[in-house]
Amino acid sequence: MDEITKVTHIDNIKLTDGGKTVTIIDQTQLPNRMVYLTMDTLEDCYDAILKLKVRGAPAIGIFAGYSMYVLCQKYADKPYAEFAAEFHRQKEYLNSSRPTAVNLSWALNRVEALVTGHADSPVSEIVELLGKESVKIHEEDIAMCRKISEYGLSLLHEGDGVLTHCNAGPLATSRYGTAIGPMLLGKEQGMNFHVFSDETRPLLQGARLTSFELQKAGVDVTLICDNMASIVMKNGWVQACFVGCDRIAANGDFANKIGTSGVAILAKHYGIPFYSLGPTSTVDMNCPNGDHIKIELRDPNEIKEKFYAEPMALKEVKCYNPAFDVTDHNLVTGIITEKGICYPPFSESLKKLFE
Amino acid sequence: MDEITKVTHIDNIKLTDGGKTVTIIDQTQLPNRMVYLTMDTLEDCYDAILKLKVRGAPAIGIFAGYSMYVLCQKYADKPYAEFAAEFHRQKEYLNSSRPTAVNLSWALNRVEALVTGHADSPVSEIVELLGKESVKIHEEDIAMCRKISEYGLSLLHEGDGVLTHCNAGPLATSRYGTAIGPMLLGKEQGMNFHVFSDETRPLLQGARLTSFELQKAGVDVTLICDNMASIVMKNGWVQACFVGCDRIAANGDFANKIGTSGVAILAKHYGIPFYSLGPTSTVDMNCPNGDHIKIELRDPNEIKEKFYAEPMALKEVKCYNPAFDVTDHNLVTGIITEKGICYPPFSESLKKLFE
Repeated sequence: MDEITKVTHIDNIKLTDGGKTVTIIDQTQLPNRMVYLTMDTLEDCYDAILKLKVRGAPAIGIFAGYSMYVLCQKYADKPYAEFAAEFHRQKEYLNSSRPTAVNLSWALNRVEALVTGHADSPVSEIVELLGKESVKIHEEDIAMCRKISEYGLSLLHEGDGVLTHCNAGPLATSRYGTAIGPMLLGKEQGMNFHVFSDETRPLLQGARLTSFELQKAGVDVTLICDNMASIVMKNGWVQACFVGCDRIAANGDFANKIGTSGVAILAKHYGIPFYSLGPTSTVDMNCPNGDHIKIELRDPNEIKEKFYAEPMALKEVKCYNPAFDVTDHNLVTGIITEKGICYPPFSESLKKLFE
Repeated sequence: MDEITKVTHIDNIKLTDGGKTVTIIDQTQLPNRMVYLTMDTLEDCYDAILKLKVRGAPAIGIFAGYSMYVLCQKYADKPYAEFAAEFHRQKEYLNSSRPTAVNLSWALNRVEALVTGHADSPVSEIVELLGKESVKIHEEDIAMCRKISEYGLSLLHEGDGVLTHCNAGPLATSRYGTAIGPMLLGKEQGMNFHVFSDETRPLLQGARLTSFELQKAGVDVTLICDNMASIVMKNGWVQACFVGCDRIAANGDFANKIGTSGVAILAKHYGIPFYSLGPTSTVDMNCPNGDHIKIELRDPNEIKEKFYAEPMALKEVKCYNPAFDVTDHNLVTGIITEKGICYPPFSESLKKLFE
């Protein structure tokens, strides 16, 4: 694992073999093993998303674009109609791997639009366009993460303590990530921060991924259990909370990994600013408030059995296992996007993003 | 495990073989195996406390009393001076198993006082007195837990949802326990509650013990990760929070399992009453406030490795692992003791307990 000196420069997803294959870091093996997976079949690409080998909405979108480019080269000798039909079939199949990940269908629709929009072009030319588009999706995400990181960094001071929840770093996105991007960017510029990473039960993305990314990038990171956020704040060790977001409603309420709302309430109690970081594509202006965001309920065994050497609760004990919760807008200090920082009232500042 | 129909009636600690041995449930094996351990040697008794086979301050105190009674019978044929010296030696050794557990030294000093106070009595008579005293320590704890449970139950209504953190139930004490005593007592009286048990990272006492106890007692229990308390409260499912306490300062600040202060802040945010339950022996009138309570820091591997099939964070990642936190008195609705319920201002109501 010593080859990774700067996590912000690892390629978690990349085209390989001159664009004939796509290679990812298998996130399910972290932090114990750095395993690269190289693929060129539909089944392997589908499996990588389904089994969370690649995860994080932006990362899934980037991977989906590259996958379609790699796959379509195998039937690039077909006439357009056959090519387009096969492209559509494979795209629909890949899209079914995780139906709730917005970026997956967004990226797939974006590359398919190129195929349907160039019915009169030679297939070889379409394939070339697809290659360029898939790289563009990746580059756009890098630029977006960079802007978000810059805006976030503008709020921090040398030596600040920052608490984060779950994983919105390089592995879930590209290059800097969102919520931990400001600290990674700041580190590159010679600044030092103390980051507290909530382990983020039940799937432990904070322990397995966020603390891994920060440690590898040389950022001072301390791993805590979720229930230790209160004492860490009380100790005066936290000057800001930075978290990601999965969906932002028009009034500023936002859904993110389960436990985020609790962090926001603690931050308000202790008088610590609390920021949500994410691209404007996460803002859903058609969603008036958090009550309209449906919360996915997951398998009880994630709480009772997963990761453990033996079960940690009786088989018959009920579990409630929501994947996300909604943080009320009045707990949020600011929402940091690639277009700038929105402040309350969010119903106005978010609207301005799209004007 | 089917023999246990009512956890409130299990004997987690008992004298066996006519008082020649002491038997406990090995709590480290729960919830997967119900293993009874029967002991009559100093090493085994010491080991049981050291390795948390018996845990929970009151339970340790009860066990210590019984242990000394069992052990001293082996040298009851010695003259008084030898008997007293051996008793003292064994007591000191047992006391060193967990130096921070207040009830351990309290119980050991209590039985030793009988030995030193009866220097003129025949040793056989002292041994008999020790047997009675050790049973009395147990019976007093049962009565105290019963009173605390009754006072707690007086605050609940049929169908209420109650959130609890860590384990302050029958296994940690005797019979009903403290924080979950009201629900167990209410269940016996035909009432129904919905209890949400925080799993309580890193040692998972909520998952392994509290949800086990409640499930076995037939109380409706739902296990959640600590970071899910906020959404459960927001859903309107919680009418009261009941937690235990390890030390209560004179102003009402109290130390309890790490994460308790976070639960209290969430409860205040959502307007839910928050109660701490424990015997008056937990109140330390010499401790003016929570700032004077030292917090024990524990092994980082409890967060990164314990219980897991493989490590969940890089070896080099730092962890902060406090065993307890302090909940500010102004977050507390009431403190429930065996002598009644104290309300703010606690500096006055707690003082009255001792008048």
